[in-house]
Amino acid sequence: MAIKCETFSFEVQAQDGTARAGRIETAHGSIETPIFMPVGTQGTVKSLTPEDLRDEIEAQIILGNTYHLYLRPGLDVIKKHGGLHQFMNWNHPILTDSGGYQVFSLKDLRKIKEEGVLFQDHIGGAKHLFTPEKVIEIQETLGSDIMMAFDECPELPCTEDYMQKSMARTTRWAKRCLEARTRPDCALFGIIQGGTSEKLRKLHADELCKLPFDGFAIGGLSVGEAKDKMYETVEFTTPMMPDDKPKYLMGVGKPDDLIECIARGVDMFDCVLPSRNARNGQCFTHSGVVNIRNAEYAEDMAPIDPDCDCYTCKNYTRSYIRHLYKAKEILSARLCTLHNLHYFLTLVGQAREAIIEGRFEQFRLDYYAAKED
Amino acid sequence: MAIKCETFSFEVQAQDGTARAGRIETAHGSIETPIFMPVGTQGTVKSLTPEDLRDEIEAQIILGNTYHLYLRPGLDVIKKHGGLHQFMNWNHPILTDSGGYQVFSLKDLRKIKEEGVLFQDHIGGAKHLFTPEKVIEIQETLGSDIMMAFDECPELPCTEDYMQKSMARTTRWAKRCLEARTRPDCALFGIIQGGTSEKLRKLHADELCKLPFDGFAIGGLSVGEAKDKMYETVEFTTPMMPDDKPKYLMGVGKPDDLIECIARGVDMFDCVLPSRNARNGQCFTHSGVVNIRNAEYAEDMAPIDPDCDCYTCKNYTRSYIRHLYKAKEILSARLCTLHNLHYFLTLVGQAREAIIEGRFEQFRLDYYAAKED
Repeated sequence: MAIKCETFSFEVQAQDGTARAGRIETAHGSIETPIFMPVGTQGTVKSLTPEDLRDEIEAQIILGNTYHLYLRPGLDVIKKHGGLHQFMNWNHPILTDSGGYQVFSLKDLRKIKEEGVLFQDHIGGAKHLFTPEKVIEIQETLGSDIMMAFDECPELPCTEDYMQKSMARTTRWAKRCLEARTRPDCALFGIIQGGTSEKLRKLHADELCKLPFDGFAIGGLSVGEAKDKMYETVEFTTPMMPDDKPKYLMGVGKPDDLIECIARGVDMFDCVLPSRNARNGQCFTHSGVVNIRNAEYAEDMAPIDPDCDCYTCKNYTRSYIRHLYKAKEILSARLCTLHNLHYFLTLVGQAREAIIEGRFEQFRLDYYAAKED
Repeated sequence: MAIKCETFSFEVQAQDGTARAGRIETAHGSIETPIFMPVGTQGTVKSLTPEDLRDEIEAQIILGNTYHLYLRPGLDVIKKHGGLHQFMNWNHPILTDSGGYQVFSLKDLRKIKEEGVLFQDHIGGAKHLFTPEKVIEIQETLGSDIMMAFDECPELPCTEDYMQKSMARTTRWAKRCLEARTRPDCALFGIIQGGTSEKLRKLHADELCKLPFDGFAIGGLSVGEAKDKMYETVEFTTPMMPDDKPKYLMGVGKPDDLIECIARGVDMFDCVLPSRNARNGQCFTHSGVVNIRNAEYAEDMAPIDPDCDCYTCKNYTRSYIRHLYKAKEILSARLCTLHNLHYFLTLVGQAREAIIEGRFEQFRLDYYAAKED
C-alpha cells in the first residue's frame, strides 16, 4: 500500500473566471497561489542568499534540480546535512523536479528502457540509471516538500504513435513513483504529457488523474512551440485536471505567460528566465523590458523600474547598474536578479489579490495597458 | 595659496610600543585606526552591497580606483550622480588612489614626462595624459574623502640614480597636486617612495613631509620584495613620518603583514588580497588559510572558521561553500568575500582594542599561537 503525504494540503480560496487563488500547506510552511518559484538549480538561486529570497523578494517556495544535485554535490553530502533545506540554509518549501527533463535532454548520451533511463552525465561522463524508484529516493533524500514523478518529455514535433507509447510509459512510471514513496512529509505531483494535442492530453490526463497524486503538472510545454499553441494547450488541459489539487505549469515563463496562464487556471509556475536573463542584463519592468547593457542607459538616473520598490530600484540608477554590467561586476547579476525575481513575485501576488477581489480581468487589462504606455 | 582641507582631522588616541590607535574625521564620517580598507576598484567591492560592507563587515572606509573609474564609467557619469558616494550608494568615507600605480604598470603603453604620464588605456587603447592637476581634478570629481598625490612607483630593482630622479619628480608632482586642490572637503595624502633603501626613504621623507599634506603613505612596497625587507622598510620609514598625521601603508597585505606593520606604527592599510583570494576560494581563518576548493572539505560540516561570527560562518558549512565553488556559483564569491573582509576588519579592530588596553604584544603572540594550534 502506497504511503500518503500527511503534511500537504491545498484549498482554493477564490475563483474569478477560470483564475484561482489558493493556499498550499507543506512540511516547511504555506504557499499562497498563484505562485512563481525561483529556480535554484545547484542548491542556490544564483547570486542570492535565502535572506534575499525571503526578505527582499518574498519568495515562498523555490525549485531544486534532482539531476544537478544528484551529480554535485551528490547524495552523501546532502544526507550529511539532513537534506537540501539545511544544506542551503533555506527553511521554507522546496519543490524538486524529477531529473527527467535534464536526462532526456542528453539525447545521444541516454537510452530509454522500461526500467528507466541509462545516461552519461554532462560533468564527468559517468554512467547512471534513473528509474522511478531511484528518482523518488533522491528526492526524499533531498527532503523535497513537493517531489515530481519521473516522466518522459518527448521532443516536439513527435509522432502520435511515439507520444502515445511515451505517455503510457510515463503513466507506468508514475505508478511506480507512488509505490516507491517512504516519507509522509514529501508530497508527490504527477506530470501530464501529450504535446499540444487536445486528444492526447485528454488521454493522458484521464489515466494520470486517477492516481493519488497530491497535485498535477502540465509538462512538455515551453519547449519551442508557438505561444498561441502553448496558451491553447493550457486552456484545454487545466479543465482536465482535478480542481481540488494544485495545477502546475512547468518551465513557464515570461510575465505575459504568467498572466495568461493564471487566467487559464494555473496555480504554480517555475522558470529560469527572470534569473538567467538578469545575468544577461535583461530586466523586466511595468513598462516592458529594459536591456541594461544598452548605451541609452549610460547616464540614465532613473531606477530600472520607476514603479518598483525592490532593493535595487530603491538604491541604484540604471546608469550605475549598466556600469556594473559593462565592467563585468558580480553585483550586476545580483542586483538584476533581485529586481527580476521581485518583479515576478509581485506580479503573481497582485494577480492573487485581483482574483480574491474579483477584478482579475481588469488587472490583466491594466497590465497590458501599462506596457503600452 | 593652496587650499586646506576643513573636514579632515586625525588624533592619536593610544600608543602601545610603536603601535597606535587613532581616529580620523572626514566629510563622510569617522574612521577608527588601525584600519583596513576594502578595495572597490570599479565602484563596487566585488559581489557586495554597501549594506553588506557596513552591517556585516563593519567596513569604515573603502578604496576606489581613479584610473579605472576615469576610464569606465567616466567622469560625466560620476558627475551626474554628484560623486562616487552617490553613484555606488556608499555614504561613508572613500579613499581614492591617484592612478599612478596603474598607469606606471602599463609599461610599454606609457611615456613619463615632467608634465605627467602619457598612456594608452587597457580597455580601448585610447591615449590619455595624467598630470598631477588632472589626477586631483578626477579625484575631486569622484568626491573622494582622502585623495592621493600623483607619484611614480618605480619597478624594483631600480638603480639608485633612477630612484633619486623619480623621487625628485614625485616631490615636484606632490607640490603641484597640493596647488591644484579646489575642494575643502577632500583631504590629500602624499606618498613616500625610495624602495627598500633607508637612505633613499629618508631623502624622500625629508622633502615630502615638509609639505602640508593631511597624511602620508608609504608607497612602492609589496611589489615583490622579500617580506623581511618590507617589514624592515616599514620599521625605519614610519619614524620619518609626522606622528600627528595618519601613516598609510599602500597595497598591504596578508593578516600577518597587518599585525607586523601595525606593530611598526602603520594606521591604514588596503589590499585586494582578501576579496580577490575569496573569489579563488582562499579563506583566512584564526587557524590559518582554508582553501575551500580542496577535496578534504567536501563533507566538512564546520563553518569556514569556527571562531568567526560572520554571516557566512553563522549559516553555512565548508561542504556547502565548497559545492558552490566547484559548481562555479556566484554565491561562493559573495560568501567567501564577506568572510575574508570580516576577518580582516575584525583583526584590525581587535588590534586597536589591544593597543588601547596596552596589551598589543600579548595580542600579537596570541595571534600567532592560534595559527599554530
